[in-house]
Parts: sequence; structure tokens; C-alpha cells
Amino acid sequence: MAERKIVKPKPVSGFPEWLPEQKLVEERWLAVIRREFARYGFTPIETPAIERKEVLAAKGVAEKEIYALSRLAAGEGEDPSTEMALHFDLTVPLARYVAQHFASLTFPFRRYQIQKVWRGERPQAGRFREFYQCDIDAIGNGSLGLLNDAEMPCVIHGIFSQLDIGRFVVRLNNRKILQGYLESLGLPEDRAPAALRAIDGLDKVGRDQVAHDLQAQAGLDAAASARLLGFLESEGELGALRRIEAGALFDRGVAELTEVVDGLHALGMPADAFALDLSIARGLDYYTGTVYETVLADRPEFGSICSGGRYDNLAGTFTKQQLPGVGISIGLTRLLARLFETGLVTPGPSTAADVLVTVMDKAVLPQTLNLARELRAAGLNTEVFTQLNKKLGDQLKYADKKGFAVVVIAGEDELAQGSVTLKHLASGEQVTVPQRDLPHAVRSRLAPASGEQE
Amino acid sequence: MAERKIVKPKPVSGFPEWLPEQKLVEERWLAVIRREFARYGFTPIETPAIERKEVLAAKGVAEKEIYALSRLAAGEGEDPSTEMALHFDLTVPLARYVAQHFASLTFPFRRYQIQKVWRGERPQAGRFREFYQCDIDAIGNGSLGLLNDAEMPCVIHGIFSQLDIGRFVVRLNNRKILQGYLESLGLPEDRAPAALRAIDGLDKVGRDQVAHDLQAQAGLDAAASARLLGFLESEGELGALRRIEAGALFDRGVAELTEVVDGLHALGMPADAFALDLSIARGLDYYTGTVYETVLADRPEFGSICSGGRYDNLAGTFTKQQLPGVGISIGLTRLLARLFETGLVTPGPSTAADVLVTVMDKAVLPQTLNLARELRAAGLNTEVFTQLNKKLGDQLKYADKKGFAVVVIAGEDELAQGSVTLKHLASGEQVTVPQRDLPHAVRSRLAPASGEQE
Repeated sequence: MAERKIVKPKPVSGFPEWLPEQKLVEERWLAVIRREFARYGFTPIETPAIERKEVLAAKGVAEKEIYALSRLAAGEGEDPSTEMALHFDLTVPLARYVAQHFASLTFPFRRYQIQKVWRGERPQAGRFREFYQCDIDAIGNGSLGLLNDAEMPCVIHGIFSQLDIGRFVVRLNNRKILQGYLESLGLPEDRAPAALRAIDGLDKVGRDQVAHDLQAQAGLDAAASARLLGFLESEGELGALRRIEAGALFDRGVAELTEVVDGLHALGMPADAFALDLSIARGLDYYTGTVYETVLADRPEFGSICSGGRYDNLAGTFTKQQLPGVGISIGLTRLLARLFETGLVTPGPSTAADVLVTVMDKAVLPQTLNLARELRAAGLNTEVFTQLNKKLGDQLKYADKKGFAVVVIAGEDELAQGSVTLKHLASGEQVTVPQRDLPHAVRSRLAPASGEQE
Repeated sequence: MAERKIVKPKPVSGFPEWLPEQKLVEERWLAVIRREFARYGFTPIETPAIERKEVLAAKGVAEKEIYALSRLAAGEGEDPSTEMALHFDLTVPLARYVAQHFASLTFPFRRYQIQKVWRGERPQAGRFREFYQCDIDAIGNGSLGLLNDAEMPCVIHGIFSQLDIGRFVVRLNNRKILQGYLESLGLPEDRAPAALRAIDGLDKVGRDQVAHDLQAQAGLDAAASARLLGFLESEGELGALRRIEAGALFDRGVAELTEVVDGLHALGMPADAFALDLSIARGLDYYTGTVYETVLADRPEFGSICSGGRYDNLAGTFTKQQLPGVGISIGLTRLLARLFETGLVTPGPSTAADVLVTVMDKAVLPQTLNLARELRAAGLNTEVFTQLNKKLGDQLKYADKKGFAVVVIAGEDELAQGSVTLKHLASGEQVTVPQRDLPHAVRSRLAPASGEQE
């Protein structure tokens, strides 16, 4: 055969790819996220990665960031271009899905959706061109109770408290409070979006810059801007908010926030796991009520790791039905990447199996394979060493390198006596047990975490 | 606000999208598949959906079927086209991954990979342009034991016997047997691929057409073609194969197949779940040893629902390392679509939750939410009805429509007495139980299957 040209397998920047030991962490996270989403009665859906361009063009992301599709080659006279593009979030596809399948769905429709999305951004630190989003939304037909707004932080708390990310706080606010307060300052309605965008920068660009933006971009005067900043930085205590006179919209916001906080307490959300924060605006025009951000208490520089909010109408682009909703989204890939980078999360073994069955003697291969079969039947993830010509030392090295917890060693003499040797790699402990006790003996030597992983 | 133009949310053909009750079936299947892959020590990896064009062009699929990417719009003077395209299978990305991360991996490298792939085919019945593939492969560095070939059908058997698809048989063969037999008929080596492709059609186009193709395309004469067909249709019994004299390559194929069959027995594969079939060729040039197909015993017209085989060198395009491997792939989307269409699989509830907690009285909302919290803490997927103004009858209708197994009803008087009512929807049974017994009372009324679904 002629020597072939080697294509160098270099990575494409902006497209993260995990090694097996990292991917196992991501899989464990995904399992926790799916389980907690379902625990609250959210049901999975999945939409194609590809939508028609006109569906995607209907909303909010710069066209530069959307990847369009064409076929790499076309037949004679055929046009390789297609009318399709990759989705850049899961909200536009959800809106299209709900409008399209409206008659087949039962409302309130509570869905979760965990998929990759794509954005044609210039790659830079912490920005990816392909990443997982993990979204939940509750969608009402005509109306939707505020209990849904209270559930969102509880779901997130249920997830993050099972992941090894340290302390975190879900911060919440209500856009009606901000918009009402801006009204009370005399700001015309059409300047509110600019003001909200400026407020959204408070954590990132600092007080002075926000004061400047409020004046330059939203047209507030210096006194109003100072008053607003004072309000944003106040405690956000509900009793104090109720005493502020800032009009009907403001009052509705405070009433909504109160109901959500009551729900949070009743649902068992620990008091130190959430906080009101009047400076949370969320840049998107989209939100109309409750808004959320989630920060790591010891790593505020990560920014919000999970955000969302309430909106009045999900799918106005696709249907005349009024579909209010509330949702929240975990930016999984970005979060994991930063946790790996900073060493806050350290990957473990590079195998999904608990136990390696070594292969000592071809003469007893059937009995050895039978041991593996019994371990699997007992629910243990079991790999058989499949290279028959390797010494035990090489097999143990392999087990160590991949991070197996336990190795089974079964020689001809032992098997003849109905027993088998088990080696616990971390401690070096080596014991001989009756074959029938093997699954139990292995299980008792596994860290409790292994059971969760499945 | 001005009336907006409504974009009709019509589906794009060739891109399947499930309703919630169908997606729940797919999720259950995916959970079974992941669990069984891990049970045998295969470890998850995931590669970006997007690869560089030169990586994808390196192998086998028509360029017409590859979707290339460009940005929907570009800045002034910028080129919107990119050097990237969507992957069309998981084998080319695996080859690139193994070559790129070679130094970080431990061999044999055993990975599973469950991802969508995209093909720009003309949509037609049973063909999709986006679909899931669920692949496992074991890759050796330099060599790879035949025990791996024996494990593949066992993994597949473990999966399909947990899914409700009726009887199935994994059929296997060895390409060396076919190639050796062709050699013994005097067929020049360069005509073997054409002959193998013709043989591959035996199930689909019938004996006469294959006889014709063997002569017209592979250049066999009528006598040799008849002899070959007689061989392909023979029992494939190992003892009989050993008695055939067809040269060294043929003998190696028979020896390999014997070793694989011995392994299958030792690993506990039931004798009626696999069968030798000398007519299985698999069209791809790629395979060099064991080949697999899987058919539904009562639905042979579905064709192979799970196929694969052994290859000598995974990543010759990307590295000079010799990396033999063996793998198998489940075409999940296509299979599920056909099972839904034919009614062989019927979707169940459209919710992932087991129990709905109704909301009777705003005054006791905190106690009601506390019940939900206790159910969740006990591991039960629990939805709270979040529309506070609805009558119980409406809430029960909602529960029925979504397919909840159990509904909890808690009125003020009952709660005051520390009890709660539970309604089992399928039987209509209604009982009042002490609050502390609620999780147990709910769990005992769930079908055992719900536990699996997690």
C-alpha cells in the first residue's frame, strides 16, 4: 500500500473536548442535573440542532454568530446552500416547538432540555463556540402561577448542592421593581432598556461607570442616577421595599417578589442559599418579572453560573397564543471548563468501571469470564482485561493508570478451590474470598460515590 | 405594540422531533444504553459536532452528504465561510480523537459515544438527516485480543433484552472467511470488494440478483458464483467450516470465529441470541475480521438495527500508530422511529414525574409544598400543580392527561389531622393515609418500571 499523507489531528479553537476522566465528571453532572429536573416534574424534550434560518432570525442574536449550513458539494446544477442553520440557544427552539406542537401539549408545560448550542463568536478565554446548555422552563397557556418562579431556585439548589463546587447563592430580583423605580424617577419608558443594561453592568464595570452610563445612555440626570444607585445598593429587605412609594408597577413587583420568597421558604430552600439583590437586571429585553443569577460565594469572578427569569410571552413570533413562562439555564460547559482550569474540580479515574478482572491463565478463561458475568449481574461495572498474553504486573499497572478501585485475580489453583483474590488498589489490601462472596466483597470496598454515578 | 408577522413553525423534513411522551421513551432507552456500556467498562467520550473539513474529507462519505458551516453574516471584508463541517458518523471523530490525545489515553482504550450525527441526504422513509448513533469501540495499541469481539454482542444483548422490542438475534461472521473463500475461487484480490458488496445484498435484493452482480461486477464465472452462493447459504456450523479446504486466510477466519464463539458462551450469551451467518459481509472496505448485524426476529424487514465489526487500523489517516479495533453501533433514532410508526412501541405518560400534588387551599399552601418536599426527599419525582385558582376536577383532568400514576389531595381539615388523601388514577382507588406514611404509600402504588427510569 502506498504511504498515505497524514492529516494532523489538531483541535479547532473554541470547541472544547474533554479527556475521558474529565468527560466522566461531566457525565456525572449531567446525571445529577437530569435527575433533579425530573424530580420537580420537568420532562425532557429535544429539538433538532438545526432550524430554518427564518426561525432563528426571529430573535436576538447577531447574525454573525449564527452558523448557516450548506452541503460540502452538490450535484450538477444543484445549489449547495440550504435554508438551515445551527441553533444558538434553546429558547428559540422551545418557542418554535411549543407553537408547532401546541395542540399536543398539556399546559402548564414543564420541560427540560439539555443540548449543545453553537455560536460563531471569536474564541476567547471562557467563551466557546460549542457548549452545553441545561434549561428548564414552565410555560402557561394564558397564565402561569408564581409558584413556578419559586421552584426554579429550588431545582438549582438541589443540583448544585450535589456537585462539588463550594458555596453558592441564587440572587433574585423582579424587573417590575426596577422598571417601576425608573418610572418614579421620571424616566420615559423607551429609555428603560438602556438603563437596565447599564444597571446590569454594576458587578462588572463598577459604580462610577454605571453612573456614567445611566446619564450618557439612558439620559438620567446626576441626582436621579445617584438616587437609583443608592436604591440598587440597598439591602433589598422586603419590609423596607414595601415602605417605598414608587407607583403601581413597583408595588406589583414587590408583591410578586414577596410571593416568590414565601414559596422559597415553603419549598425548603435554605435561607442562606438565596438573597435578594436589587441590582440584578439581566440585559435581555425579554424578561418582565422575576430574574435570577447564581454566583459561587468564593469565586464571584466566575460571574453568574446559572441565570434566567420570567417572561410574558414565549412564542409571539410563532403563534398568537399568549404563553407566559419562567425558566433558568445552567451554562454547563463554561462552568466546568473554569472549574477544571482553576483546579476547583479535579478529575478522577479515566474509567467508568469499578473493577478489573485480570486474566491469568488461558486454561481457566471460561471461569474467569464467569466471574465477570456475576459481578455485572450484581450491578457492578466490570472490565475484563482482554489482552491474554500480558503478565499480572502489566495488568495491575493498567488498572492503576485507569484508576480502577478493585482488581480481581483468579489463578487456576484458587479457582479449583472455589476462591478468588481481590486487591484494593488504593490501600494495597489483598484478600482471598469465596467466589460466591465476590460481588459483596467488591462492593464493600468501593467509595459510596460510585453508586451515585450510574 | 404593532402587530408582528407570524413565522409559521413548520417542521424541517428529515429532522425527527419527538413529543414529550416519545422523548421519555428515548430517554429511558438512552439510560439503559449508557448503563450497559458502562457495565462492561466502556467509558464515555464526546467530540465536538464540528470538525475541520479536511478531517471529515479523509473518509468515505460522499461530500454531498456533509454539511459545511458558514456564518450567516460577516463583518465588512470578512469571509463568512469557515473551514468546518458537521460530523456524519462517530468513527472518524474517534479516529481523530485517539490520534490527537494518544499520549493521554491508556490502551486498550474502551470508549462509548452517544451523539447526534448529520447527513445531507434527500429525506425519505426511514432516512434521517439528523440522528443518534450509540457506538462502542475497543482500540488496541498494536494488538487487540479477540475477547473484545466476543464482548460486543453481549453488550448489545444486555441492552436489547431490557428494551421492549421482542426477540432479536445478533448474527456474526468473519470477513477473513469470505475473503479466503473468494481467494479459493480464484478471484483476484482487487475484485474482492465488489464481490463483498454484492454478497451484502443477499438479504435485500435476493439470490438471483446477487448471482448476477457477482458475475457482472466481480467477474466470477457462473459455476464459481453458484458455488459461492451455496457456501453463503450453508449452515455456518463451525465443525463443517473446519473441514473446508480454502487456504490459510479462510482457516484464520474460522479460528477467529471459533474463539469469538467460545468467548460468547463463556460470557453467558444465550445460545438462541446469536447465530453464525456466512452471508454477512458489511459493505465497508474497512472491516477485516469479525462482522455483526442484529435483526428483530419478528421484523426482519427492519434490516440490521445494530452493526459493526473488527478493523485492522483505526486512524491511519491521522497517525502512524497501528490501532486495531472492534466496535458496534446502534442506530437509535431510526429504530425508535420505526417502532413508533409500526406501533410496536407505544409511548406512555407525557411526564417524568410519578406523583402530582394538587393545591386545594391557599391557606395551607406551605403545608402542601412541604408534602412535595418530603416526597422529593424520598426520591419520588413530584410535580406541584402550580395554578392556584383551579378546581380539583381540573387538576385531576390535568393529571390524567399527562399520565401521572398517583395524585395527592390535601385539604385543610385533613392536614389539621395529620393525614392526606392519595388517589391512584389507573384503578381509581382513593385512600387516606397519615402524612408521615405518604412517600411509602405513593411508592407502593407505582409500577416497578418507574424505579428503573429514575
